Amino acid sequence: MTTWIKGGEVLQLTPQCHLEKQDILVEDGSIAAVGEVPAQTKADQTMDARGKLIMPGLVNCHTHSYMTLFRNYADDLSFQQWLFEKIMPVEDRLGGEDAYWGNMLASIEMIRTGTTTFSDMHMFKHQCVQSCADTGLRAVLARGLACGQEDAEGGKRRLDEAFEEMEEAKKGGALVSFMLGPHAIYTCHKGYLQELEALAREKQLRFHIHVSETKHEVDSCKEEHGVSPVQYLAGLGIFDRPTVAAHCVWVDEEDIDILREKNVNVVTNPVSNMKLGNGFAPFTKMHKAGINLCIGTDGAASNNSLNLFREMSTLSYIHKGVDLEAQSTPADLMLRCATLNGAKALGLADKIGSLEAGKRADLLLIDLDRPQFQPQNDLVTGLIYAANGSEVDTVLVDGRVLMEKGELKTIDEEQVYFEMEKRRQKYLV
Amino acid sequence: MTTWIKGGEVLQLTPQCHLEKQDILVEDGSIAAVGEVPAQTKADQTMDARGKLIMPGLVNCHTHSYMTLFRNYADDLSFQQWLFEKIMPVEDRLGGEDAYWGNMLASIEMIRTGTTTFSDMHMFKHQCVQSCADTGLRAVLARGLACGQEDAEGGKRRLDEAFEEMEEAKKGGALVSFMLGPHAIYTCHKGYLQELEALAREKQLRFHIHVSETKHEVDSCKEEHGVSPVQYLAGLGIFDRPTVAAHCVWVDEEDIDILREKNVNVVTNPVSNMKLGNGFAPFTKMHKAGINLCIGTDGAASNNSLNLFREMSTLSYIHKGVDLEAQSTPADLMLRCATLNGAKALGLADKIGSLEAGKRADLLLIDLDRPQFQPQNDLVTGLIYAANGSEVDTVLVDGRVLMEKGELKTIDEEQVYFEMEKRRQKYLV
Repeated sequence: MTTWIKGGEVLQLTPQCHLEKQDILVEDGSIAAVGEVPAQTKADQTMDARGKLIMPGLVNCHTHSYMTLFRNYADDLSFQQWLFEKIMPVEDRLGGEDAYWGNMLASIEMIRTGTTTFSDMHMFKHQCVQSCADTGLRAVLARGLACGQEDAEGGKRRLDEAFEEMEEAKKGGALVSFMLGPHAIYTCHKGYLQELEALAREKQLRFHIHVSETKHEVDSCKEEHGVSPVQYLAGLGIFDRPTVAAHCVWVDEEDIDILREKNVNVVTNPVSNMKLGNGFAPFTKMHKAGINLCIGTDGAASNNSLNLFREMSTLSYIHKGVDLEAQSTPADLMLRCATLNGAKALGLADKIGSLEAGKRADLLLIDLDRPQFQPQNDLVTGLIYAANGSEVDTVLVDGRVLMEKGELKTIDEEQVYFEMEKRRQKYLV
Repeated sequence: MTTWIKGGEVLQLTPQCHLEKQDILVEDGSIAAVGEVPAQTKADQTMDARGKLIMPGLVNCHTHSYMTLFRNYADDLSFQQWLFEKIMPVEDRLGGEDAYWGNMLASIEMIRTGTTTFSDMHMFKHQCVQSCADTGLRAVLARGLACGQEDAEGGKRRLDEAFEEMEEAKKGGALVSFMLGPHAIYTCHKGYLQELEALAREKQLRFHIHVSETKHEVDSCKEEHGVSPVQYLAGLGIFDRPTVAAHCVWVDEEDIDILREKNVNVVTNPVSNMKLGNGFAPFTKMHKAGINLCIGTDGAASNNSLNLFREMSTLSYIHKGVDLEAQSTPADLMLRCATLNGAKALGLADKIGSLEAGKRADLLLIDLDRPQFQPQNDLVTGLIYAANGSEVDTVLVDGRVLMEKGELKTIDEEQVYFEMEKRRQKYLV
């Protein structure tokens, strides 16, 4: 199966983000050519990309997709009220079917706003694998692992489920890979983290973990262990495995040195961190230190949107504001964080993150016929400073068309809305 | 002419923002009834608002609409480079026709993202009145007034043009009113400001002025006049007239006391202030002091979008982040700032800003059939934390339909894009 995408303005990331008028030939899910495609080429289908910008699909490096149930449900509340009064009591009652439909709703919003790969931390069994098989999205999954001192059985069960999910996925059909997902230092006791570290080493798995999201987490860690969460995790050898560390809001210079030295991939979640009153991560300092930075939306319970265009622009603005420096967090860096850096963080840089021959065809067609792109000055900076995510017109993942001209090809939206509304009535009213 | 809008969820602002299933009857441009409309009512047209949220049109209290020419043109540059190397040299060459098409492009984006009234500071003659006559948008216009010590002639010319514009508008056809627009303390010498103060008093006009946007402005003012810009303007009597003060980023507690005492309306422009590296206004402090706060996008040269939905959500997030407090800048306050507070600031609170019988019919229908509103938990907070502005479906201003189901009724978009692209080629390439 070959698809010839003709006449678009292709976003290339090197040496810095710029556009080139190029054709793209997709063959069996992978990019066969970018640039000139010989006129005599026979393609099974052609796609007219004139007046469109073509860019790599976006990579959301930290979310909890099942949480769309809680979208617009618990806003303007303190972190304590939000988590302990509103989210956790309901979350405990959710089953696998609920998670599946939550994933499906998340998938609708992600596809519509240009995310083609997401890194998910969840609490269920095979539902996220199933939703990926159904939607065609690419994902890196991590069953959230927690184990308090008195909960050896729960800890073991969660870990068993994580490996069951990996086995289940081998049946195929879903574009998924896996990480080990210790939730955080305050939900996993030391012995459990040590066990996970040994397992990850043995099975060559990566880690996905929340790190230094709140001041409270850091203060408690220092009190209990005498060191910061970053130092504590480094001491346990966690960072000797490739790691995706979500948040890293309350990290100091010493922490930043460690994150850099250990090549930890940091996922910043600007909207969630502000919305829950946790503040601003030291993004510019981490960037200057040379850390691989990528972007996540976090779950819909604390964002409330999974729209990475909104996240990229917000990320840029806030650090220009914090740094009092208009040249901070430029558009080029934002696009890199949301594409190639994300791919690197997830161990997928050989497959996705840029539009190059040999990579898988995960790409977006952006409709330029919108006021926010007029007049057509710099369309690259326009993607960050003027777009709102609604300009995504067509989405391919692994060469498969998931959305064409705004129409979803793999999901029945009405059914998903119906199933989610039913669950809202059941759990939240 | 009567329009019966049936079956929508109407956003009411008191006692706090909430939804009520209500019909709205529009008669000759004004809201005749909200709530139950007698079944025997005969309307010239009905509008099916089932599955839609109906809200007051948004009020953009500070923009420079002609500046859309510069959208995505000068990004990630220092304030100095941005203004003196990129914007000003071109701006000086623009004529009235250029301003007209810039206004028209701004109008497309404003209508599409739910702005029905904008407060504009511009540099031209009758072009903004003309564009309002053509588009049907409501506006409050202020010819930007500047006068250096050696430029008495220029100062007089600009002032003459301001009054000419007011005369011209009397011919009718445009929903416009006027303010006096001294640009800023650093572009108007003291004598000129005094002259404007006397004129405003005599002619009962309001002021629209930039205040304490940059640290440099405040430092220079203190050096030259020994006081802050707020104190300086208060001393000149400017604030004894109703005033819309744009930015107010670098204001201290003493300034805030004065702004409150003088009932100055403060327009915050969060995105522009971050994008140019000017930082965060002390929004929460000003709110607690009781100042009437409203929202502006500033011009497209420094934003780069005129989308107030994006502005409202950003405003909320950043102050939760700055305050380290999830309960800061709640959704309710954001909606109020962008509607009723804006109407008050512009002297239009008797006409617009809320959906009440007797007010003019400036309203939006929001399409709820989008993933960002699913499941339908709190749709009021959803407007701030999940919407991106693309959900605006239908727009009425003064009872006239400017957009219906995404289709603009008063503007030929293709023509506007063509005219703007021509000007980009002429001035910016």
